[in-house]
Amino acid sequence: MLGITGSSVTSRPAEGRRVRGRGGPAIGVPDCRRFQEGWVLMSFEAAVHAQAIEIDRLSLEMCAAAGSGHPTTAMSIGHIVTVLMFHAMRWSPDYPDYPTSDRLVLSAGHGVPAVYAAAAILGMKVGKNPSSRRKLTEADLANLRAWESELDGHPNPMEGFPFFDAATGSLGQGLSVAAGLGVAARLNQSDRRVFCIIGDGESREGQVAEALDFIIDHKLTNVLPIFNCNEYGQAGRVSEQQSAGRLAAKLEAYGFEVLGIDGHSPSQIKAAFDKFAGGSTSTDHAPFAVVARTIKGWGAPSVQGGGWHGKPAQNEALRKAQGELDERRIELTSSLASSDQFTIQPPSGARNPEPAPGELPSLSQTMRALDMESKLASGRMATRRAYGLALRALGQVNSEVVVLDADVSNSTFSETFARSQELAERFVECKIAEQNMVSVAAGMAAAGKIPFCSTFGKFVTRAYDQIEMAMNSGANIKIVGSHTGITLAADGPSQMALPDVAWFRSLAKVKDHRGNPGCYVLQPADAYAAYALTGVMADYEGMCYMRTMRVDTEFLYSDDQVFNLGGFEVLSEGRDVALLATGYMVHEGNRVVELLDKAGISATLVDMYSIPFDEEKLLDLISQNNGYAISLEDNYGASLGSAVADAVTSSGDAFTLEQMYVNRIPKSARTTAEMLQMCGLTAEDVVKKVMQLLQVA
Amino acid sequence: MLGITGSSVTSRPAEGRRVRGRGGPAIGVPDCRRFQEGWVLMSFEAAVHAQAIEIDRLSLEMCAAAGSGHPTTAMSIGHIVTVLMFHAMRWSPDYPDYPTSDRLVLSAGHGVPAVYAAAAILGMKVGKNPSSRRKLTEADLANLRAWESELDGHPNPMEGFPFFDAATGSLGQGLSVAAGLGVAARLNQSDRRVFCIIGDGESREGQVAEALDFIIDHKLTNVLPIFNCNEYGQAGRVSEQQSAGRLAAKLEAYGFEVLGIDGHSPSQIKAAFDKFAGGSTSTDHAPFAVVARTIKGWGAPSVQGGGWHGKPAQNEALRKAQGELDERRIELTSSLASSDQFTIQPPSGARNPEPAPGELPSLSQTMRALDMESKLASGRMATRRAYGLALRALGQVNSEVVVLDADVSNSTFSETFARSQELAERFVECKIAEQNMVSVAAGMAAAGKIPFCSTFGKFVTRAYDQIEMAMNSGANIKIVGSHTGITLAADGPSQMALPDVAWFRSLAKVKDHRGNPGCYVLQPADAYAAYALTGVMADYEGMCYMRTMRVDTEFLYSDDQVFNLGGFEVLSEGRDVALLATGYMVHEGNRVVELLDKAGISATLVDMYSIPFDEEKLLDLISQNNGYAISLEDNYGASLGSAVADAVTSSGDAFTLEQMYVNRIPKSARTTAEMLQMCGLTAEDVVKKVMQLLQVA
Repeated sequence: MLGITGSSVTSRPAEGRRVRGRGGPAIGVPDCRRFQEGWVLMSFEAAVHAQAIEIDRLSLEMCAAAGSGHPTTAMSIGHIVTVLMFHAMRWSPDYPDYPTSDRLVLSAGHGVPAVYAAAAILGMKVGKNPSSRRKLTEADLANLRAWESELDGHPNPMEGFPFFDAATGSLGQGLSVAAGLGVAARLNQSDRRVFCIIGDGESREGQVAEALDFIIDHKLTNVLPIFNCNEYGQAGRVSEQQSAGRLAAKLEAYGFEVLGIDGHSPSQIKAAFDKFAGGSTSTDHAPFAVVARTIKGWGAPSVQGGGWHGKPAQNEALRKAQGELDERRIELTSSLASSDQFTIQPPSGARNPEPAPGELPSLSQTMRALDMESKLASGRMATRRAYGLALRALGQVNSEVVVLDADVSNSTFSETFARSQELAERFVECKIAEQNMVSVAAGMAAAGKIPFCSTFGKFVTRAYDQIEMAMNSGANIKIVGSHTGITLAADGPSQMALPDVAWFRSLAKVKDHRGNPGCYVLQPADAYAAYALTGVMADYEGMCYMRTMRVDTEFLYSDDQVFNLGGFEVLSEGRDVALLATGYMVHEGNRVVELLDKAGISATLVDMYSIPFDEEKLLDLISQNNGYAISLEDNYGASLGSAVADAVTSSGDAFTLEQMYVNRIPKSARTTAEMLQMCGLTAEDVVKKVMQLLQVA
Repeated sequence: MLGITGSSVTSRPAEGRRVRGRGGPAIGVPDCRRFQEGWVLMSFEAAVHAQAIEIDRLSLEMCAAAGSGHPTTAMSIGHIVTVLMFHAMRWSPDYPDYPTSDRLVLSAGHGVPAVYAAAAILGMKVGKNPSSRRKLTEADLANLRAWESELDGHPNPMEGFPFFDAATGSLGQGLSVAAGLGVAARLNQSDRRVFCIIGDGESREGQVAEALDFIIDHKLTNVLPIFNCNEYGQAGRVSEQQSAGRLAAKLEAYGFEVLGIDGHSPSQIKAAFDKFAGGSTSTDHAPFAVVARTIKGWGAPSVQGGGWHGKPAQNEALRKAQGELDERRIELTSSLASSDQFTIQPPSGARNPEPAPGELPSLSQTMRALDMESKLASGRMATRRAYGLALRALGQVNSEVVVLDADVSNSTFSETFARSQELAERFVECKIAEQNMVSVAAGMAAAGKIPFCSTFGKFVTRAYDQIEMAMNSGANIKIVGSHTGITLAADGPSQMALPDVAWFRSLAKVKDHRGNPGCYVLQPADAYAAYALTGVMADYEGMCYMRTMRVDTEFLYSDDQVFNLGGFEVLSEGRDVALLATGYMVHEGNRVVELLDKAGISATLVDMYSIPFDEEKLLDLISQNNGYAISLEDNYGASLGSAVADAVTSSGDAFTLEQMYVNRIPKSARTTAEMLQMCGLTAEDVVKKVMQLLQVA
């Protein structure tokens, strides 16, 4: 069923050395044999049609074999994918993730059968382990969506298809990823070009608008958005608002030069890509965008129209569509000469790896270097400010660290990085558009950068789906949410991050593709912790979420303190009750310890700065406190307290845990003290709870 | 410090009867005394300036008193707010939430001091309890952001300021809320007009683009977006992409007729609002949008420019700004005649309340009425399909039920509602734009509708911030996510809702303003449960999240089964171990019970369809099973299992809980059975875990 019968014309790049990302030896260039001789446009047309029809046929057949999938979407981009993968992109099928390769981000991920088909025809290397990849064959296509297949239902690089940089399929995210790849390429002085195919229906997602603004703001002429206007969504026709005409008008209003094409005309596609290529290293013109009018189910009228979204043609319907494609082949490829060959240009040579990162100086050293001695001597500083200082110091010792913010850099203190002249180039202002920011970061991470994204923890929520997709993509991104919890007080609940720990904790309970927690949740209680943990995040390959606070808090630690992912710190050793606190509540916990001490109760205070944490060690601690524990956090529940509850119940010990957290929707108050009172989280409230727990009168 | 010294010209609407939402007696119209006599444009100009300057001054002073806030943003909208609240809007300060009143949604919520100032001048009624509201005074303004004040840091209707329909402050959401109010007004055949002020920087949020498309799609000429282009964001200048010129060009490309104005020119503001008003009941023209060029800190040059975002002017800086405003007053209000008065037109009469909802027929009745007897007899049906049937039946007995979907109504089965001719008008297609969908629903809920929003559970994530803001707004919305968990198999992780329970559970742990859980999380395991719980959600006033499954599942219940928020159902009573399952895992649990029975182990199977649940009752059950429990769910952790752990640890009982959940990032597989195997969640895996737990060889 699957097997090439057409007149496919292919190139096979020769062997070359392959090097993964940063840190390796000097990088060689994979070169390609070239076949292009006496190429004329007419035979190019025919050759593209031949290949696209082959891709369409394979798409239909692999979805039929899988029993699911979106063949008609794939057929709407068959020609575009052909021109990209066989001609326009500079890449090597042997090294699909070569660091300078041109990239294709398939934002409308459900069209992926087209790319799988092209990859099989080209014998692209697949496999999770870079050292043991194999050539994809057309026979493999029959395993689309199977458990052991690298060909996942939607683009999924971590499952063995490294041609892609990002998992897509949740719509509207790809153009932002492409923009991130574009920004990274520019920082790397690479001439890599980034193509992104976006569905018309998908372009309704607001994130696409955010990405368009970002591309114009940053003059990313090395990124080409290609809107695939096939007119059909899932439940119905695409809105007139996302029609080719309206999209073109919008794109022009955004500031793009729009190239409108017939998405099934090889020469028109080629002309658009050539125009883009010609201008991709210059920023003295407007970025280009392609609006391609296409047909969903091109070539096979029997599967066109509204009823065929996400539905494989089976049996008779499949045979009918195959027959229709055969007719198109005869009609469109008669001029094809057997000597015609596509040429895939190789990528340019990768730069030498960056020098290994230097050591992060201590917080005191950094502050002294910035004439902040009096602040240091004050003994108090907000964790967000320490984060900014750490970013700046990190930026100086690690050239891959980049920082993104969403118009609040003066609140998150990422401006401390941005304001350093030597680092400013690596600061990416994303304006008020958090979804785009996170996906841009995922794109930059795919290019080897270590992105730190900052905004208010509340606004990070906007990008949770993007964060989950970044986790699925294996993206090495660090997210830092400021103004977490209730202590910011006066601005009220619209600015407070409250259910964020619960959500990230769920990701923390997953093993990522590297076998680590899908995300670490870090809650530094003081400036030293925030500073050190920022360094820890940079050293670690994987996703992290760190929460910082608006308010100044007292120093609890010093430069010498070591913080580890998965760690916690005992600040005060007692024997009657364990107070397990995070963030601001560690400070309130110190007051509790004093008050309890006066009442003759000996409390242990633990700074639970990491989720997950060492459960066994914590259970020992609770055991040493007669099995009594109270968790303290100034966010909504299902968070730290539940993490402790999980540990306790898996042990079966008869421990008693009281969880104290914010259990009402807060409102504004003028001071942090009032907020704690409003939410029942003052030291006095905790003391009362301890008394109840220990059944002390 | 606070007190009117200017020549403010006010109107005081007379007393009128006030009626709250649905269900009350026939509704009277509050009328207003009218003062408008011999009004001429020049004195209108002067009167608006006088009032706006007063608002500006009060804004400065209240923020100074609060020690925080955004006075300069407020000053950029002082004139617009004046023309709206003193002239253009048809409303009554005595009945700020009168159901037919024109509405103002302040999307850029940080500008709220301007509205508070106007409300104080007008003596608008405030207070959480509708039956004991009091007139706001200018003295109250000094309590801005204080704990006991109704004047929260950002618009917050549930804290006693019912002029607003939605909590805002997390940016970019207001226009969608306004659109929801507009759709509801049209459904109610109300001539209410909806104004929405959007910041220029804020309009970078993609949700604004989604809302604009939605307004054009639905021809909402009764909604007026007003873009406040004051050119300064928080950390820096607003991007050129959000400049007045670029915004106007974009809006035209979207399909709006753009009214560009000087946002400090009373006559230009009035002309724009008049034009909008003239066309607000007709859909034969393009919707209007206003692009207002304004000055951040208008009237007081000493607080203008980039350094004054979110910063109150204090002491000398305050006095200087006050002095500058006084100069503007002298300059701009000299032509004011003492007889000039603003007229606030009253809202039109509210419609009679809808008849009380009828009783929901049973699932069997509904299916028989739709000729689905053979499906019913099959004994299997997907929960998503039952949801669709429930929507349709509900729609027929409850005229306030409305349904929204995001281009996947044929997957969520909300199409079952949409395809009924009599209900089609109440189906709102939102296309692929989930953020907008949820905020539109919040707007419709504020107008008394009971909106059900459906899309894939995965894509609901896009709108988590909007959902939290809807909770803060007290919005009575129901969110239904389909394709939850891993059982959908082939499409892969980009389509699976996995950390969703963890996030919603955090909201479930909060008390909302009515004293109920901030959100109920419902996980029906069969069609009868899904059907009944849809009805339960409609009857309940508050937010709910229900998860449905893609796959067909066997019937577990019948028409007679009663489901309650907070309930669970024991399906099989045993004595050795309690299996606490949700969704698909209830079915797998049935297999576990059989397998264990063969091994001589007697298991209790519980369908944990609600979070929160009755904890005491559950602990009794676990106790009856020797203190052994296993939680079973096919999503990420920190979810049901942690909810049980919370209950267990608060009791201090020595129970042992094993949590089984998805602890890896899944990939595609062809079948549900393979997915369960991939994630270690087959009945056999559970049996093995039980054996370990009970220490049976």
